[in-house]
Amino acid sequence: MDRIVRVIQFGLGPIGCATARQVIARNSLELVGAVDIDPKKSGRDVGEVIGFSDPVGIPVFAGLSDALVGSNADAAIHTTSSFFPLFRDQIRDLLNSGLDVVSTAEELSYPWLANPGQAAEIDAIAKTAGKTITGTGVNPGFLMDALPLFLTSISQSIDRISVRRVINASLRRGPFQAKIGSGLTPAEFMQRMESGRMGHVGLRESIGMVFDTLGRRLERYESSVEPVVADSKIETDHFTVEAGFVRGLLQTATGYDERGEFVHLTFEASLEAEDDGDLIRIEGSPSLEVTLKGTNGDIATVAIAVNTLVRTVEADPGLMTMRDLPIVTWVE
Amino acid sequence: MDRIVRVIQFGLGPIGCATARQVIARNSLELVGAVDIDPKKSGRDVGEVIGFSDPVGIPVFAGLSDALVGSNADAAIHTTSSFFPLFRDQIRDLLNSGLDVVSTAEELSYPWLANPGQAAEIDAIAKTAGKTITGTGVNPGFLMDALPLFLTSISQSIDRISVRRVINASLRRGPFQAKIGSGLTPAEFMQRMESGRMGHVGLRESIGMVFDTLGRRLERYESSVEPVVADSKIETDHFTVEAGFVRGLLQTATGYDERGEFVHLTFEASLEAEDDGDLIRIEGSPSLEVTLKGTNGDIATVAIAVNTLVRTVEADPGLMTMRDLPIVTWVE
Repeated sequence: MDRIVRVIQFGLGPIGCATARQVIARNSLELVGAVDIDPKKSGRDVGEVIGFSDPVGIPVFAGLSDALVGSNADAAIHTTSSFFPLFRDQIRDLLNSGLDVVSTAEELSYPWLANPGQAAEIDAIAKTAGKTITGTGVNPGFLMDALPLFLTSISQSIDRISVRRVINASLRRGPFQAKIGSGLTPAEFMQRMESGRMGHVGLRESIGMVFDTLGRRLERYESSVEPVVADSKIETDHFTVEAGFVRGLLQTATGYDERGEFVHLTFEASLEAEDDGDLIRIEGSPSLEVTLKGTNGDIATVAIAVNTLVRTVEADPGLMTMRDLPIVTWVE
Repeated sequence: MDRIVRVIQFGLGPIGCATARQVIARNSLELVGAVDIDPKKSGRDVGEVIGFSDPVGIPVFAGLSDALVGSNADAAIHTTSSFFPLFRDQIRDLLNSGLDVVSTAEELSYPWLANPGQAAEIDAIAKTAGKTITGTGVNPGFLMDALPLFLTSISQSIDRISVRRVINASLRRGPFQAKIGSGLTPAEFMQRMESGRMGHVGLRESIGMVFDTLGRRLERYESSVEPVVADSKIETDHFTVEAGFVRGLLQTATGYDERGEFVHLTFEASLEAEDDGDLIRIEGSPSLEVTLKGTNGDIATVAIAVNTLVRTVEADPGLMTMRDLPIVTWVE
């Protein structure tokens, strides 16, 4: 791609602010607009909002139509909500405005299994608009789906795939430590779980991508979430967790085909977790064991959203996922 | 892809025999022809040649035109030589016969840097024929190029990439043990090196793919090969190596851009090598360290050639490499 992609940042939460900074840092991308409904952000210069010392000369607008005026934008990075009911209209408007879109919405990373009707609707909107929307992220979107799938390129046969991701939340932001239940009682944790306000989103999407791509039929899907409880007192910059209180969560998902368990995913995010890192096992011929250290979720999600822009602009119209595009790489 | 791809196996050395067995094992592929110039193979049933107890009803022909008759073939797997002067006419004939082609020729894995004129010629032949040729393999083609590139999808910035592959040749075939110089004196090793008959082919291609894809300019390229010498006596099923004699080779390649060293590759294949496995480091933000165990070169090269067929048939015409196709995965 020889031309510069002109980008609107849609959503200026922590991830959106970081993607905006990355867009500005890259030679092949140019930030030409920014949207956030938060009245504390709209109306200000985007440089102020994303933490630059100097203004960048682009105002944050509360609505897309204002941001589009005179922007000549090619594409948008969408970083608002994880869930279809909340992002559906936003994505529709972005596509119908003539923009290619990269979204970090977890439910878009591979919606064909969990939300096939809504996936088909977005796909149809994109094709009618002649534009491309790609759902991406580090997890879902890479570590538990696209990367293991790419590793199967050297497989003669596959018996079982498992991925274990462990995040030492002590090294992460305060909101992340809160999100995983730090400081709650185990009972409070379970209550929040039951009301659907806790837990990592995306294991179902990852299992969907792996099953569909490898031609397996998902016969049964099981998942679990449980609190990880502190044995002794833990103090971070943001939380004090006494022994017996929650220091994080442990989540699993398992996909079965007619032969039995085929994919098993484990996600642990907890304060003072040991073995921060990722382990991918592909049992078969050959049996592979792949260990990753350093896949920091904040840095990596921002990076993959920005890095996916060029491949998205180049792709055919429709809803794409990370298994459909040519391998995404860092871009200038 | 819903239809079955009909495949001709071109070349029945150890790798070609194994890819033919894999094609037969896969539901989405069908072996419809086989070619080998060796008079000990041509004329026989391919089942006999590839080590099946029963014939498969397909004769091995010495030439492509005979194998094509009545085969209705869609594609070919090409596993003969590593080098352009030796495979150029074979690839041309396969494409001009209306076949999509996957080749394990190392020089085709990313020829745009080392052999740009010959790459352009093959690309033009493929486009004129309306067919696709993909160069692939585990190394080059995956471990030192396409896989590190895919890992950069989660990079915000990259300072340096290094890959170290260590193969314990004690676990490999006799011809492999011979190829890396097992049992030679160091002087004999260097003599063979100088006559160009020793050393792993493909480090240059891997460096080319990484530099071009990441938009770096290769200012300088350095490579080295040296013997690994036994400290004490080693015995394998195929070789006895006394202390002071060669037990394998250590090869490096380094690519520099205007800022300095950017990619460093190390390839060691030796009898009784410790740490059999691969280590990919991407220094930058984040700094990633990825360790792979189990990437057996014989199994993996065969697998990736077979797994790349469907993506190749689906791709636009021309010369493709592993960074151009949607991620290759195991296929049914």
